[in-house]
Amino acid sequence: MKLLYPTSLELKPELLEGFSVTLQPYDVTKPIPKDHRDAEILVTWTNTPENLKDAQQNLSKLRWIQSLAAGPNDVLNAGFDASKIAITTGSGLHDRTVAEHTLGLLLSAARRFHEMRDYQSQGKWPAHLGGPQPDRPAGKFTTLRDANIVVWGFGNIAKTLVPSLTALGARVTGVARHAGVRDGIEVYSEGKLEELLPKTDALVMILPGSDSTKHALNAKRLKALPKHAWVVNVGRGTCIDEDALNSALDADDIGGAALDVFEKEPLQESSPLWKQKNLILSPHAAGGRPQEAERLIAVNLRKFIAGQELQNIV
Amino acid sequence: MKLLYPTSLELKPELLEGFSVTLQPYDVTKPIPKDHRDAEILVTWTNTPENLKDAQQNLSKLRWIQSLAAGPNDVLNAGFDASKIAITTGSGLHDRTVAEHTLGLLLSAARRFHEMRDYQSQGKWPAHLGGPQPDRPAGKFTTLRDANIVVWGFGNIAKTLVPSLTALGARVTGVARHAGVRDGIEVYSEGKLEELLPKTDALVMILPGSDSTKHALNAKRLKALPKHAWVVNVGRGTCIDEDALNSALDADDIGGAALDVFEKEPLQESSPLWKQKNLILSPHAAGGRPQEAERLIAVNLRKFIAGQELQNIV
Ligand SMILES: NC(=O)c1ccc[n+]([C@@H]2O[C@H](COP(=O)([O-])OP(=O)(O)OC[C@H]3O[C@@H](n4cnc5c(N)ncnc54)[C@H](OP(=O)(O)O)[C@@H]3O)[C@@H](O)[C@H]2O)c1
Ligand SMILES: NC(=O)c1ccc[n+]([C@@H]2O[C@H](COP(=O)([O-])OP(=O)(O)OC[C@H]3O[C@@H](n4cnc5c(N)ncnc54)[C@H](OP(=O)(O)O)[C@@H]3O)[C@@H](O)[C@H]2O)c1
Repeated sequence: MKLLYPTSLELKPELLEGFSVTLQPYDVTKPIPKDHRDAEILVTWTNTPENLKDAQQNLSKLRWIQSLAAGPNDVLNAGFDASKIAITTGSGLHDRTVAEHTLGLLLSAARRFHEMRDYQSQGKWPAHLGGPQPDRPAGKFTTLRDANIVVWGFGNIAKTLVPSLTALGARVTGVARHAGVRDGIEVYSEGKLEELLPKTDALVMILPGSDSTKHALNAKRLKALPKHAWVVNVGRGTCIDEDALNSALDADDIGGAALDVFEKEPLQESSPLWKQKNLILSPHAAGGRPQEAERLIAVNLRKFIAGQELQNIV
Repeated sequence: MKLLYPTSLELKPELLEGFSVTLQPYDVTKPIPKDHRDAEILVTWTNTPENLKDAQQNLSKLRWIQSLAAGPNDVLNAGFDASKIAITTGSGLHDRTVAEHTLGLLLSAARRFHEMRDYQSQGKWPAHLGGPQPDRPAGKFTTLRDANIVVWGFGNIAKTLVPSLTALGARVTGVARHAGVRDGIEVYSEGKLEELLPKTDALVMILPGSDSTKHALNAKRLKALPKHAWVVNVGRGTCIDEDALNSALDADDIGGAALDVFEKEPLQESSPLWKQKNLILSPHAAGGRPQEAERLIAVNLRKFIAGQELQNIV
């Protein structure tokens, strides 16, 4: 049995030893060499669309793809059939990096670092943002303490993020497909949003990109948010209707948005979002560096050989 | 016995009831009314220098000043004699606000939100900051995870900040006047700095302003930091030699600086710091909103009446 692993990140193949599996590195930017078309397992990370297309056409023995991305949209787009080939995601490998970035975006928004920067660029002291301030004024998002934060998409990343939020005094509620209490946080299904949104100070979106999440945040839901509420999106750009978001920002219907992901990346030159003062733009920078990937691959290798259901199966 | 409390913030005087003390509000921007020159206790918050000068000259029965600022430099500058009048600080009332801001500045620096903003302002996508990234590369400050963070000034604010840093995976060391382990963190005296600085990824300064902390961070110590290290200062501006800092930034001798406090505030128009790309300017915005001040005042009132040593005595 042959496993192809990518050279697009530093992996320690020695951590995958001890299985009766040939471990073969490969270049994710080139077609898979003819000698390795017999691979049964393919680990992917930032593969080019051409490479994936080639793999899809020529790896006739392929039985399992382990993506290291939390959202394996690239693999699915290449035409692999998840009913014939096991496809597993890298969910879990990006928890700490994305959670940290998200926390940073939230604090940046609350503390208005973006506005401070704009003043600094103009050589102006943003006096209104410093000195004596009201403490936790109603109808403003100025701190995480006592802020109502709704985390929409309550998977691995959310679970890593939440303790940092509650430690700073935030009141966190989750929204996911399945309702219930998770790690001490009340998680609701989407039906509850109507009730939650009007009381939300910051809406953090960590949803996967899929048909069911497309434009999850639409004009109606934006309208339901208080005027001071911030939207933070580190999931997928397709989860927000950007036209509706731009209109909401234009109309000061929300406080602002901090976006790490966009419907099209890089953000189109023509997008009006560039110029929104209360839009914090981050260039898909939250994750992008899988951590401890070998551990997930090893666990799934063990299960694969044992014929058990794999972790993070699509 | 009369206690004057400021109307410059929302205080709940009912939380101070039950002592045999007359509670009298006063305006911190005007001279103390003649009727209240008999006050023995003065609570201060953002008083004007003129008000403090007037109080210093005319409150002849004054025995105790409770400042709500963590650093009561304004009271000391007005000429009150701490050997004759008890002066207590508001240390403890700003822990959560300043800790939150500091965490935000650290994340902003690590995740380069300031640089992202500069790109956004120019309508440019900062591609180099997004997409696949090396994980925790040596010689860069890109994340708090596994970062060596030295917190210089390990008082109330530091103790509140540190759990947020360690939760994100940072390795925290403290520096203060007295050495020892505090809350599980090894705290050294300043003599250890020489050894610590070369291994520091981020130096967080939370020192009070005093003669002994003036220009604590000087050219020599800046030189001892690695080229990628960031300096974050939320204590007092006087603790950094700004000329030396500017030279270090010019020479790329450090990674950057995130400053909430400056030698002169607002930062002088002529300061070259404005234009430093890797200088994050925050307009003394970390604290500025004492929290639960009534609790500290009540505890100290009790001790004052009992003739015991007050908390936070200068
Ligand atoms: N910005 C970046 O750099 C970056 C990096 C990594 C990942 N991401 C994105 O973040 C996403 C989440 O990652 P993760 O590892 O946390 O994923 P995960 O563990 O699979 O969690 C996904 C969460 O979304 C919920 N969900 C899925 N479809 C939904 C729907 N239609 N309505 C409501 N909730 C829905 C799931 O609900 P249940 O729990 O009820 O099943 C689950 O809570 C990834 O898919 C990826 O797109 C972005
Ligand atoms: N930016 C803002 O908005 C803002 C808001 C509030 C406060 N502050 C500033 O933050 C400062 C710290 O506040 P805090 O409440 O944490 O104060 P704190 O509890 O009094 O702690 C001060 C710390 O500094 C250490 N220290 C004092 N002088 C030193 C010296 N010469 N060398 C080394 N360490 C020294 C002390 O050491 P020991 O523990 O060994 O005594 C202590 O650890 C305040 O004084 C104020 O200037 C700024």
